[in-house]
Amino acid sequence: MFQTIIEPRVSETDGVGHINNTTIPIWLEGGRNQLFSLFNPELSFQNWKMIILKTTIEYKAQIYYGQNVEIRCWIKRIGNSSLELYEEIWQKEKLTVQANTIYVNLNVQENKSEVISDDIRRELEKHMYKN
Amino acid sequence: MFQTIIEPRVSETDGVGHINNTTIPIWLEGGRNQLFSLFNPELSFQNWKMIILKTTIEYKAQIYYGQNVEIRCWIKRIGNSSLELYEEIWQKEKLTVQANTIYVNLNVQENKSEVISDDIRRELEKHMYKN
Amino acid sequence: MFQTIIEPRVSETDGVGHINNTTIPIWLEGGRNQLFSLFNPELSFQNWKMIILKTTIEYKAQIYYGQNVEIRCWIKRIGNSSLELYEEIWQKEKLTVQANTIYVNLNVQENKSEVISDDIRRELEKHMYKN
Amino acid sequence: MFQTIIEPRVSETDGVGHINNTTIPIWLEGGRNQLFSLFNPELSFQNWKMIILKTTIEYKAQIYYGQNVEIRCWIKRIGNSSLELYEEIWQKEKLTVQANTIYVNLNVQENKSEVISDDIRRELEKHMYKN
Repeated sequence: MFQTIIEPRVSETDGVGHINNTTIPIWLEGGRNQLFSLFNPELSFQNWKMIILKTTIEYKAQIYYGQNVEIRCWIKRIGNSSLELYEEIWQKEKLTVQANTIYVNLNVQENKSEVISDDIRRELEKHMYKN
Repeated sequence: MFQTIIEPRVSETDGVGHINNTTIPIWLEGGRNQLFSLFNPELSFQNWKMIILKTTIEYKAQIYYGQNVEIRCWIKRIGNSSLELYEEIWQKEKLTVQANTIYVNLNVQENKSEVISDDIRRELEKHMYKN
Repeated sequence: MFQTIIEPRVSETDGVGHINNTTIPIWLEGGRNQLFSLFNPELSFQNWKMIILKTTIEYKAQIYYGQNVEIRCWIKRIGNSSLELYEEIWQKEKLTVQANTIYVNLNVQENKSEVISDDIRRELEKHMYKN
Repeated sequence: MFQTIIEPRVSETDGVGHINNTTIPIWLEGGRNQLFSLFNPELSFQNWKMIILKTTIEYKAQIYYGQNVEIRCWIKRIGNSSLELYEEIWQKEKLTVQANTIYVNLNVQENKSEVISDDIRRELEKHMYKN
């Protein structure tokens, strides 16, 4: 899996006193930097590849300011030109968020999906989720 | 439905050149202010009621800086203590986002779900989604 | 002046219970959309002109969720290729934020500052701040 | 000094292709977590102490997605109940942002400033900025 440690910020909380729910997709995307660089090693926005199609986020427990969180991102399914992620957010040994997210490998300039190459496929397979 | 017009900000775009996908949950939550005040007329964070459980967001088309967007929020289902929203984001007569979101009516101080009152139920029913 | 009405979002508050201080620059930038379109009528990121050099923000009073705010943006000084803004944020007839911000008119592709044209200068002069 | 390493996120860039200027105050506040815990060891929002009064940010160079940044935060001046920070953001050995920020030590519940204790003062003095 791709693993990312994040230190929560005051600005990511809300008046109710916890991390605001809209912070979660921001953190999840932050946990995909290694995935993005697999498809686009120079991380160039002109040649950006990974475009999000759909995400489902389940909020299992509140997340608090003052303790680091860990983002875990696995590959759940590799399609022809798309892939599905399964992601978790943990804080102090508690599972707080589960998410499923679908990306397409898009040639942004031509607005056409592209087949995921065998090289990338082999690299993705190292991060497969196993139940 | 609850309708909200939003003027996109530069800070809500990303390097690929469109509105970033993490902006969408922020806008959707912004489109729920009237819903929140139904459950909590003084909008007090101490007596906050609506806690998000799950959201599914489908990204149908890119959204651009420079044109207002419209958030449409309907009630799709009213449960005992929870409710489901169906939401759309439109830009220039194009449907760009569809979302389904489940909230629970929680007494935050006691961390207990509460039955949705008949008064609120009647008000919610004015905003029901009809296929 | 350029005037923008903003409806605060839950995600823009923080655990202390007010609008978080980092939301203010986001709102101020949101209040400059008309200014940006003066320099770049199609609001194209490829031909973006206005690059921020410096900002000073004074926090005079807390801002609360649940009441609209008004952003007021004046031109304070027009230089050869730069300009200075004076901005205020009001909520319920209370001045909550004062800011001074310097932008340069930059040709982003060549990374060179450009003289502000007479046409734009005349338009900017309609929005001058008068003590 | 207080030192914090931050990994930039796609959502923190904008259409022009760099880190958006409104991300900077968010990062700077993220770099003050250790300072906040000095005044409020449990980081409780009920007993929050540090309230921002003023910030001046100078944007010296563009910051790019794809490379970590380092936030450096020094104490520049300790007053009776207020303090001034001097902060820098570095990316790849380049100074990209300089900021000066004033906080007051506020008892939020009584809305009264409080004298900075000798214990905290001694701790702050370990992080003084020296030209």
